[in-house]
Amino acid sequence: MPMIRECVVTTAYGPGEGAQVHIAPLGVIEDGSYWIIAPFRPSATLDNLRKLPFAVANFVDDVRIIAGCLTGRRDWPLRELAGFPVPRLESCLAHATLAVEHVEEHELRPRFHCRILEMANHAPFMGLNRAKAAVMELAILVSRLHMLPRDKIEAEIAYLEIAVNKTAGADEQLAWDWLMERVRQHFAGSA
Amino acid sequence: MPMIRECVVTTAYGPGEGAQVHIAPLGVIEDGSYWIIAPFRPSATLDNLRKLPFAVANFVDDVRIIAGCLTGRRDWPLRELAGFPVPRLESCLAHATLAVEHVEEHELRPRFHCRILEMANHAPFMGLNRAKAAVMELAILVSRLHMLPRDKIEAEIAYLEIAVNKTAGADEQLAWDWLMERVRQHFAGSA
Repeated sequence: MPMIRECVVTTAYGPGEGAQVHIAPLGVIEDGSYWIIAPFRPSATLDNLRKLPFAVANFVDDVRIIAGCLTGRRDWPLRELAGFPVPRLESCLAHATLAVEHVEEHELRPRFHCRILEMANHAPFMGLNRAKAAVMELAILVSRLHMLPRDKIEAEIAYLEIAVNKTAGADEQLAWDWLMERVRQHFAGSA
Repeated sequence: MPMIRECVVTTAYGPGEGAQVHIAPLGVIEDGSYWIIAPFRPSATLDNLRKLPFAVANFVDDVRIIAGCLTGRRDWPLRELAGFPVPRLESCLAHATLAVEHVEEHELRPRFHCRILEMANHAPFMGLNRAKAAVMELAILVSRLHMLPRDKIEAEIAYLEIAVNKTAGADEQLAWDWLMERVRQHFAGSA
């Protein structure tokens, strides 16, 4: 059973100052000493990886970044890495630089098998938080709204909201609110 | 709204080699620059804090430790800290040393307001993981089995199990299995 690490993957089209950097929350799949990035087709991450086969797995616990990327807020500060063509997120707690070694083609989700080049530790992890986990689950729900019946969406939200109300800080509450705005837009549009 | 950081709190009765160290998963409550530990009465953490008003908040993402403490597996490697009477967990990703400044008495859960003395970063955080979060939720459920109706317990487990099946590594699966064994014991006992 492969472990899936939820992170924010940065990719870039062309190295240097003018690079088109893309930020996307993705679950990276562990496969022995390799990590697999499996972006959906079509996506900017997929396009970038085809052109420049390098990525950074940014390990964040600021769930505003994850919720932000899903709600049109992709402008998070980046930092260039010496000797690597793709920047990391400024606020990641740790990151790994990845080089694509081979691509397993697939109609929906090609799998980019990556070698881990380097890992760096920037800031202390400050504990698991139930609200962060609930935001993560809501983010996944938001990315699949069009596939799910309304009563299932509402039941899951009612469950997840308990942990948010009990354990969120200001950042988790903001991330939750961004995602809930998107849920309401979806219901309004499909009513 | 105070943020609650789930961590493993170490406390000790008496400093030095012969100290009675206790390990307990607890949600530490942020309160401005203070952190509040609110152990239930009676508990070893409460007893230890009365006798020696220092603690370590260990930030772990190895959920086996959390599930282990709830299922009689408390023997996790410790490491002494120079100049501090309470050890940290060997495998914590980061830790904070805490000094109790005042105690707010309460019939069920006295609140120990702690000042943060030092924070240290030991190992990189490797990403949020839905299975770790599900184990955390099941751990909370297990600590409240006697208060919850069987259908509610089963419904929550059915929901949480989806993320475990999709995203767990071997450690998360083991932690889940330890907790599920306890759930089955509970149902067998109350049948």
